[in-house]
Amino acid sequence: MFHPLTKAEKKMRVMGIDPGSRCTGFGIVEEIENDLRAIHWSSVRNTPKHSFPERLKRIYDELMFAMKKFRPDVVAVENLFYAVNVKTVIKLGQTRGVTLLAAVNCGIELAEYSPLEIKQSVVGYGRADKNQVCNMVAALLNLKEKPEPFDASDALAAAICHIHHSGLQQKIKLARR
Amino acid sequence: MFHPLTKAEKKMRVMGIDPGSRCTGFGIVEEIENDLRAIHWSSVRNTPKHSFPERLKRIYDELMFAMKKFRPDVVAVENLFYAVNVKTVIKLGQTRGVTLLAAVNCGIELAEYSPLEIKQSVVGYGRADKNQVCNMVAALLNLKEKPEPFDASDALAAAICHIHHSGLQQKIKLARR
Repeated sequence: MFHPLTKAEKKMRVMGIDPGSRCTGFGIVEEIENDLRAIHWSSVRNTPKHSFPERLKRIYDELMFAMKKFRPDVVAVENLFYAVNVKTVIKLGQTRGVTLLAAVNCGIELAEYSPLEIKQSVVGYGRADKNQVCNMVAALLNLKEKPEPFDASDALAAAICHIHHSGLQQKIKLARR
Repeated sequence: MFHPLTKAEKKMRVMGIDPGSRCTGFGIVEEIENDLRAIHWSSVRNTPKHSFPERLKRIYDELMFAMKKFRPDVVAVENLFYAVNVKTVIKLGQTRGVTLLAAVNCGIELAEYSPLEIKQSVVGYGRADKNQVCNMVAALLNLKEKPEPFDASDALAAAICHIHHSGLQQKIKLARR
């Protein structure tokens, strides 16, 4: 039996976030009838003059602002389960904490993907480097210029990954009906 | 030369926080003319029915509420620089992130102490267990009953540690004049 997609199912707006205390990238991607479109991307850059708690506040405030402005249906964030050293994990963890909080405080659904899933979904290869991810993001979104910085292209990649995954789940659901 | 303490210097209200995703303890201690007084202590308890982002929101909201209600001059939090495993560090990091954010968003000064500093300051012994810390906190604050849970007594200990440290720095400042 064929179930045509409803209008609500046809359109999905996803905000990907790549949290980092020095630079947090974010990007909003919309899917309309299998076509991907980049709505906006940017990054929150912190300098050494900002104390760590100030950095958290700047990230939280800017993400809240962007979430309220662009009203995504879902926020997609990279999973955090390893890092080069404990200090990095702690800093990343704290930054990720305020990122999740911003999404919950805006009432937006959260989705988490491992770096492997994101790279596989965008480049088709789990060990792709940031440059490869950036190139593929630009190609998938039909962008004339590469999205910069890498934190923003990684964020767009997380958003694309979610759209690919939910598209796949949608197809599985339809096939099972 | 003798410098009497001004009225402003005589009174200090510190909120100690012991962040944890399952249970975040907090306690407010006031120092008035070298006398310590517990104003309030409590904990934010999360259950398995709460998703991790929901936990972060509950912790953030309750801490913000307590900070606005009790208006501490300083928030004292334990440093995080090690843990049993990476998963724990990541969870703790995220919880700590929203804790710091709550303090910054309330415009309250932050102070950080290592677990060793807190235990040494309260018990006089850096490897004291939670029960010893709890007993000493009760004794120092003249409490008839032990503050519960341990997360709350650990939080009160962080507050006491800050008061001890700032008292010491005050004396050093006076001695140098």
